[in-house]
Amino acid sequence: MLTDLLPGQGSSGSEGFDFNSDNSAGVHPVILDALSACNAGFVPPYGVERFTERVNLAFADVFEHKCFVFSVPTGTAANGLSLGGVTPPYGEIYAHKKAHVVTTECGAPEFFTNGARLVLLDGEFNKITGPDFEAALGAGPKRNVHQLLPSVVSLTQATEQGTVYSCDEISQISNTAHANGMNVHMDGARFANALVSLNVTPAQMTWKAGVDVVSFGTTKNGTMNVDAVVVFDEKIAQKIRFLHKRAGFLSSKMRFMSVQLLAYLEDDLWIKNARIANANAARLATGIELIADAKLSSPVEANELFPRLPEAFMRSLESANIRLRSWPDPKGDLYRLVTSFCDSEKVLRTFEAVCHGYPVHGDINQGA
Amino acid sequence: MLTDLLPGQGSSGSEGFDFNSDNSAGVHPVILDALSACNAGFVPPYGVERFTERVNLAFADVFEHKCFVFSVPTGTAANGLSLGGVTPPYGEIYAHKKAHVVTTECGAPEFFTNGARLVLLDGEFNKITGPDFEAALGAGPKRNVHQLLPSVVSLTQATEQGTVYSCDEISQISNTAHANGMNVHMDGARFANALVSLNVTPAQMTWKAGVDVVSFGTTKNGTMNVDAVVVFDEKIAQKIRFLHKRAGFLSSKMRFMSVQLLAYLEDDLWIKNARIANANAARLATGIELIADAKLSSPVEANELFPRLPEAFMRSLESANIRLRSWPDPKGDLYRLVTSFCDSEKVLRTFEAVCHGYPVHGDINQGA
Amino acid sequence: MLTDLLPGQGSSGSEGFDFNSDNSAGVHPVILDALSACNAGFVPPYGVERFTERVNLAFADVFEHKCFVFSVPTGTAANGLSLGGVTPPYGEIYAHKKAHVVTTECGAPEFFTNGARLVLLDGEFNKITGPDFEAALGAGPKRNVHQLLPSVVSLTQATEQGTVYSCDEISQISNTAHANGMNVHMDGARFANALVSLNVTPAQMTWKAGVDVVSFGTTKNGTMNVDAVVVFDEKIAQKIRFLHKRAGFLSSKMRFMSVQLLAYLEDDLWIKNARIANANAARLATGIELIADAKLSSPVEANELFPRLPEAFMRSLESANIRLRSWPDPKGDLYRLVTSFCDSEKVLRTFEAVCHGYPVHGDINQGA
Amino acid sequence: MLTDLLPGQGSSGSEGFDFNSDNSAGVHPVILDALSACNAGFVPPYGVERFTERVNLAFADVFEHKCFVFSVPTGTAANGLSLGGVTPPYGEIYAHKKAHVVTTECGAPEFFTNGARLVLLDGEFNKITGPDFEAALGAGPKRNVHQLLPSVVSLTQATEQGTVYSCDEISQISNTAHANGMNVHMDGARFANALVSLNVTPAQMTWKAGVDVVSFGTTKNGTMNVDAVVVFDEKIAQKIRFLHKRAGFLSSKMRFMSVQLLAYLEDDLWIKNARIANANAARLATGIELIADAKLSSPVEANELFPRLPEAFMRSLESANIRLRSWPDPKGDLYRLVTSFCDSEKVLRTFEAVCHGYPVHGDINQGA
Repeated sequence: MLTDLLPGQGSSGSEGFDFNSDNSAGVHPVILDALSACNAGFVPPYGVERFTERVNLAFADVFEHKCFVFSVPTGTAANGLSLGGVTPPYGEIYAHKKAHVVTTECGAPEFFTNGARLVLLDGEFNKITGPDFEAALGAGPKRNVHQLLPSVVSLTQATEQGTVYSCDEISQISNTAHANGMNVHMDGARFANALVSLNVTPAQMTWKAGVDVVSFGTTKNGTMNVDAVVVFDEKIAQKIRFLHKRAGFLSSKMRFMSVQLLAYLEDDLWIKNARIANANAARLATGIELIADAKLSSPVEANELFPRLPEAFMRSLESANIRLRSWPDPKGDLYRLVTSFCDSEKVLRTFEAVCHGYPVHGDINQGA
Repeated sequence: MLTDLLPGQGSSGSEGFDFNSDNSAGVHPVILDALSACNAGFVPPYGVERFTERVNLAFADVFEHKCFVFSVPTGTAANGLSLGGVTPPYGEIYAHKKAHVVTTECGAPEFFTNGARLVLLDGEFNKITGPDFEAALGAGPKRNVHQLLPSVVSLTQATEQGTVYSCDEISQISNTAHANGMNVHMDGARFANALVSLNVTPAQMTWKAGVDVVSFGTTKNGTMNVDAVVVFDEKIAQKIRFLHKRAGFLSSKMRFMSVQLLAYLEDDLWIKNARIANANAARLATGIELIADAKLSSPVEANELFPRLPEAFMRSLESANIRLRSWPDPKGDLYRLVTSFCDSEKVLRTFEAVCHGYPVHGDINQGA
Repeated sequence: MLTDLLPGQGSSGSEGFDFNSDNSAGVHPVILDALSACNAGFVPPYGVERFTERVNLAFADVFEHKCFVFSVPTGTAANGLSLGGVTPPYGEIYAHKKAHVVTTECGAPEFFTNGARLVLLDGEFNKITGPDFEAALGAGPKRNVHQLLPSVVSLTQATEQGTVYSCDEISQISNTAHANGMNVHMDGARFANALVSLNVTPAQMTWKAGVDVVSFGTTKNGTMNVDAVVVFDEKIAQKIRFLHKRAGFLSSKMRFMSVQLLAYLEDDLWIKNARIANANAARLATGIELIADAKLSSPVEANELFPRLPEAFMRSLESANIRLRSWPDPKGDLYRLVTSFCDSEKVLRTFEAVCHGYPVHGDINQGA
Repeated sequence: MLTDLLPGQGSSGSEGFDFNSDNSAGVHPVILDALSACNAGFVPPYGVERFTERVNLAFADVFEHKCFVFSVPTGTAANGLSLGGVTPPYGEIYAHKKAHVVTTECGAPEFFTNGARLVLLDGEFNKITGPDFEAALGAGPKRNVHQLLPSVVSLTQATEQGTVYSCDEISQISNTAHANGMNVHMDGARFANALVSLNVTPAQMTWKAGVDVVSFGTTKNGTMNVDAVVVFDEKIAQKIRFLHKRAGFLSSKMRFMSVQLLAYLEDDLWIKNARIANANAARLATGIELIADAKLSSPVEANELFPRLPEAFMRSLESANIRLRSWPDPKGDLYRLVTSFCDSEKVLRTFEAVCHGYPVHGDINQGA
């Protein structure tokens, strides 16, 4: 029976760790409503219909530029498709050694490019720097056919470390890339969180800063397994168009992908959700700063925190029924907290109470 | 505004052609309810949670065999992943020349196998025959390293021509395949329609008939862009597991894929939907047989019809506001009709009335 | 001991069948001399030396056009590299169903293109026709992203059936290809045999007829495992340059590849060798025409013959110690004979004698 | 005219730098003789003949183990084919960050594996260590489908730094690899130089030390663009057999590849050549050790030297008409010298004389 898997009455249904991941969050009610609303009647398949035809226009409004948008089911799909569209098999993809495309996608970049190579760069807080990137391009023997061709640099915005590239930092890297005939990819799995953090426009953070192709994440911020590849140039779009179909991403019932993207952008839902997530992260950070011996291992610029937390504090959280996810680290006191638009006020308050040393009663995961 | 795209009051929202495709149908209410129901609270991502862990068990019950299930967003993804799991790059994939994997997937089989080759077979009503398959394997110069290695045969069940392989036909082809060290793939985009047509068990139509890997379609029969690859052997599953992630199919919010598969199988929803679709096709066929000069170009064994229809009849349909999709054909009088679980009784009745020559009033696409 | 494998004194060393293949022929003495001559002293590796730098110029003289030449070890390598240079992974390669790229290269086109598809055309004597090619491009549903992209047409010159495309036939196909945004590839494993057969210039048979990339075979016509890809456009050459290295074709001791190509072109050695091979084929054809019940199954336009030969004649040949290679055929009386620059006059004369019914004494494979 | 490219009388034909590379060396006379000797008469193509059939046996004698040998035209081809035979597309290849497969093959490993990933290890003198390898396998998050699968470790023997792995060092790494279900590849571009340096048997340096597949280089040590992939296990060989053909490495006139391998192994020619090359390297090292301020940056264990040389010494060499190749290095005083079986005694003596400070007259590159 499926029902025995569903949350019972008065339960928040929370499972596993608290602040475990924005991928653990559900789907925003507005998105669910849009899915139901567009379900009535018959609509032509494969995107030749009114919902999907609206998508490019909706993104053009948001990005202030002609957009070619390709919906995909995951962030890995978005990154693979993006990189496959701008990288020849004999190309090099420059990225931070801890970027998601490097560490957590089982070689999707190699798969979608038919064997291009990731060139790994270092950098504080998971960000690569313009000078390091330039140095890497200059390194090694004089370029010839014995080496691969530097083709694209991939920036994660926001990074897996919860940090954000400024528009100037992006521009500096883009200028170097374009000067070397390379394209610039932005892995925007947390695009919205970075955007509200920088308080700039989508145009400023992308094409105005030299970004050529964007993995536009929406799943972590309220939709149901829909991300998008956004391209500003038709020539790149032509190549991606075929790869998008060939890779099994062209949905037959496309309206259910497109309507989510439309509802996500409409009335700034995406911006509002990201503001909530970032604000929640700031609240947790403020609380943590109250803890003696606690330390944030990297600045909190979006919706992720990586604090080092003392055992006493962890015990207090535990007695308040809050469990955090520990993060791989030699010292063993590192944790990752990710906030989202649907964190419960009760859990946030409980966490803050523990930080202040206030007494906490009852299981926060039980309804009032 | 998104709302201006949504169907107005009292409209069926029907668009384009009638009986255009089962991909034009919406999502079954039970599936939508399941999506809402599992939305509450936080659930771990990437399928390490109670919904996804239940999926393999649910399929094992249905198939009476240990199952390894991989959810994917499209039928193209299911076929590509299935073939990629059982075909080396230097392998040959035998399929009917009009099979979906050949004609309509932009080379997904070649992409997921890293360059295997499709070997095209002919056969009446889009079905390949055991003898033709055997002959094809024997044809050409004696096999050596100058040729590719015959690796898999792919059967479409039901075919794009609306016909269905009997279990004996499948077994005959499987025996030849296995005798040649090949695997057997079933493209089951319309698995349920074929199953109820044959009135056999999933086990009888698959592993008991020698099928090694199944593209288990559900989208055309009521879900929201979820199909599945079903494998019965762990060794094949191990390879597919990596390709599934690498290809961008491992959903972060996997619960929304898994819960659909569970709801689809629960209480035989999938069987009921397919029975409705097939019964609707039978009704249309019965009506068409009343038309002088009309002819069904292939037997109606599932939920697709390919009739040749005279102009006079087409005019009558038109005056009843029914529009059919014409199908590529030199004579120009061929049409394709596809039925689904959510055809409106009103459209079915109107079609039947026209067949009987009864007068029809009003626009069937307007609400009462 | 290696020596026990070498031919003894006075033996022609002939092995297997007579007229078995131009790949069974040895290397021309002039080529062997060139290899020895360039062996003295040290020469920089990987083609950055005087021999290789001369190659492009030598081909430019022969083709009356700027040439970018890439030496490779086999004809399969030449075809794979050529097609890989002009075909995207989602592309279609149009070729005759019996072309070498289709039947005898274990999927090299798919390997070097990362999964493009061969579209097979029929045609008498292994030649595709302009109208059939045009029809194939028009066939099927209206082109969209569900199909692959027609990218290149590959012509085998001379064909495996020993026939030759006229320059007009090539132009007609090229015009259709270019009108559809496609490139034209010529598999010239027997380029020289076709050229002397047509009695035209290399320019006329290639770029003047619309050919974009050429597999320029030399191995069958006197060199030691050296073929070349010849490209007339720098943009195509840039892509091939990387693939050529990446695929393991950039020789470290490149001088031994390049010097063969230079010696092959010098003093028209290649033309002279091809004239001998074609003349020998004509002699065999003239002889065969004397045989009652014998029949040439296709015109002899280069250096291959495919005669149907009666048993009595085969017995006479056998008693004269001439053995021919039978060719796959239901009737069982089909044979393939291939001539080359180093056929022995003695074997040719003996064959002719048998055709005339003259008595033949002694083993033609023994020295005088 | 080709002849104007050939060395004149009394010239060594030396070009570019001295001791530039063993790829600059010519072909050993014994190899040239074997090529001429096997040229007589007709021999069946594609390796179905007496020369090629002897190759596996000849290697079995040398390696004291059943061998499956695949001849290829370059070292890049040997490495690509070897790695392609033991690495799935979702596999990881562990290698030293300065290994030839990493730095100088334009992504051949990625090409032949259809997109596997190189994992780069550090290590003194271009050698990876057992502990570092084990640590790398343990590093990162717990292995799951989000990461690639560790599949093979590749060891360069001798390394590009002129150093050699001991059999114990190889065994230690192999044990870790096999304990993790991985294969072991040896890039033996300088296999012979390493072998004579260790003074062990081919068996001891390969399968007895856990090596599964060997790139057996011969080109740098006296042949004409022939290397070989040597496999000890038939299952691996079956996969390589197809890839070898598909990649364009199966020569039509295979006898000219095979006869070189046979002559190379016969009478220990390969061992003798390698002994000369290594001895010459030792002579140069001895000389360099006489130079004040000169320093060998790594041990001289095979036929390569990487000395730091003072300007005064470089001027003396120059006045003796000896030019060395400088090697990329911040300090700018690093040089690479590679010796081979055909270094001229005159150049060696001159070099030694300069080291001893003896006067040198005349151009050593002019004949007596």
